[in-house]
Amino acid sequence: MTEGPQPREAVRQMAPYHPPTGGRAGKLRLDFNENTVGCSPKVIEAITQYLTADHLTVYPEYVDAMNELAAFFKVKPEEFAMTNGTDEAIQVLVNTYIDDGDDVLIMRPSYAMYRFYSEVAGGVVREMEYRKDDLSFPIDKFLDALRPETKLVMLANPNNPTGTGIKFEDIRLILETAPDAAVLIDEAYFEFCGVTALPWINKYPNLFVSRTFSKVYGMAAMRCGCIFSNKDNVAWMRKAQSPYSVNMLAAVAARAAVRDSDYVARYVGEVLAARELAYFGLDKLNIPYFKSQANFILFQAGDRAIPIRDALRDRGVLIRDRSYEIPGCVRVTIGTRDQVQRFLTELESLWNK
Amino acid sequence: MTEGPQPREAVRQMAPYHPPTGGRAGKLRLDFNENTVGCSPKVIEAITQYLTADHLTVYPEYVDAMNELAAFFKVKPEEFAMTNGTDEAIQVLVNTYIDDGDDVLIMRPSYAMYRFYSEVAGGVVREMEYRKDDLSFPIDKFLDALRPETKLVMLANPNNPTGTGIKFEDIRLILETAPDAAVLIDEAYFEFCGVTALPWINKYPNLFVSRTFSKVYGMAAMRCGCIFSNKDNVAWMRKAQSPYSVNMLAAVAARAAVRDSDYVARYVGEVLAARELAYFGLDKLNIPYFKSQANFILFQAGDRAIPIRDALRDRGVLIRDRSYEIPGCVRVTIGTRDQVQRFLTELESLWNK
Repeated sequence: MTEGPQPREAVRQMAPYHPPTGGRAGKLRLDFNENTVGCSPKVIEAITQYLTADHLTVYPEYVDAMNELAAFFKVKPEEFAMTNGTDEAIQVLVNTYIDDGDDVLIMRPSYAMYRFYSEVAGGVVREMEYRKDDLSFPIDKFLDALRPETKLVMLANPNNPTGTGIKFEDIRLILETAPDAAVLIDEAYFEFCGVTALPWINKYPNLFVSRTFSKVYGMAAMRCGCIFSNKDNVAWMRKAQSPYSVNMLAAVAARAAVRDSDYVARYVGEVLAARELAYFGLDKLNIPYFKSQANFILFQAGDRAIPIRDALRDRGVLIRDRSYEIPGCVRVTIGTRDQVQRFLTELESLWNK
Repeated sequence: MTEGPQPREAVRQMAPYHPPTGGRAGKLRLDFNENTVGCSPKVIEAITQYLTADHLTVYPEYVDAMNELAAFFKVKPEEFAMTNGTDEAIQVLVNTYIDDGDDVLIMRPSYAMYRFYSEVAGGVVREMEYRKDDLSFPIDKFLDALRPETKLVMLANPNNPTGTGIKFEDIRLILETAPDAAVLIDEAYFEFCGVTALPWINKYPNLFVSRTFSKVYGMAAMRCGCIFSNKDNVAWMRKAQSPYSVNMLAAVAARAAVRDSDYVARYVGEVLAARELAYFGLDKLNIPYFKSQANFILFQAGDRAIPIRDALRDRGVLIRDRSYEIPGCVRVTIGTRDQVQRFLTELESLWNK
């Protein structure tokens, strides 16, 4: 023990999380599932309009942004909270429902922040595993794992890094089997698959849905997300949320982004075409992969996972190692067809060496 | 009890916090202690340079900003964390040190977020009161209130809304009396008084200091702050902090802001002159007030506190009611001499009606 204040045991026990922190500029960034061509020009126009000393100097006001986002998502303003990325959505949800020792059920592998915030809050995290063969969601085992005392379930649909989705009917079964648990369906990659539980927020009182502007909307630098539920649940979450967590420029950007949803629709079309191209290229190299419902593909590089990741980086193409959680696997973000072609060309030149 | 998931008792019990959320545009905003002339033009230039789709689309990278802020604050990069406003600094500190039932000692009245985040974390908050006569810090009573089991102390210096400061020697006494508690000195208004505990972070292992870009730097819309301590403490806090909580434009803005510290120095000079003018004007009206070490003054409006606040608002001047915590008191932010003169003119025309 060092001198001075001692951190909580929960913080001591947490696994450290070290996301890459630099060196990505100038490279083809297929490592974070971002939009690879950038946000709509209208987002930049909107921020530019707002870039005055008078605007920057005042604490954020969210009323207009809330109203416009509500209309876009077809909910009432009191049925969601704007958050500092999906990360804050998860944190606020956890802080609203999880006390020390409470049971939290999540999947492995999935988004690291479910475990992270649950542990910060002192929750006891149980993890179920995706099916080994096809990385599909094991609905029967998951339903069995739900307990009457389970307080929180957090699922990504489609899931990162597996790319696999959960069927409508399975989501319904979970909601009905755990009526007293808060159930988050994190739809960060919704736009690539079109499956959403959002219309159910007033049907299932335990349903929470999150969306983000960091992925297809191309605004990861801005940190903006939303969490939806019925108005009673949202009122509790807002009570546990700090009043000014979203940067005003992010709120301005989000408004502009939903106004230009055609831009996102066109990009999604390009990514879906590029994903087919990627499947084709991987097939050609006889590299096994998992079919994805999102803008990334997990493929099998075996013991070459890290060497291939490094060699691609040396050639200016960034992909993400996932072999520490799915043996031999790396993940590549799908961008445009040109970008996928560049990735495939580099991969091919390395693969058969 | 409604159906569905039940929020934590800690969240149920929390007092709701409703900051004003709109209608401030176009008015003379002397209600939030912001910089009343706005951030440096160089901040806007820097953001503009960064406003490309390529930049907005990627997750934030903080290395350059951390290095530049470290040099400005004369600390090492590992001796602070950048935060989403001071609010996240408080939250991360609380989440690192406070378990359910832990003892937290704060002052009343002070910044509402100390209690807020402590309660979210399940801490037990005790509040000491500023001296009734002059709103000075009651060092003897405070030292008596410290217990061996006290885990966290959070003090604003100078304090909001009282405007009063804590002496160097008193901070030292607190740090020495509570060696096992984390002691936060929140220096949101440091630039107006020049008293800082920051150089002590490697002398007292229990010291934490926070600063913000929301006040004198004129960047409240951007949400950027910092929390400083020795590198061991900072390492624990970073473990409990989410990896991308600061908007990249905020980090870019903070870098530009510290490069143009002359701009802030000039504004501070103007505010200090304007504060003298405000004292003079209040004296002239025989309105009692408390001498302030920050960019705001708390004054006695008696039972007219709310009517005066409302009448000023109707004339386009916003001030903040504080009578719910200090009977009869309202708070006015000090801006430029012209702005203070406008406030005084409006106040005078109302006061002797």
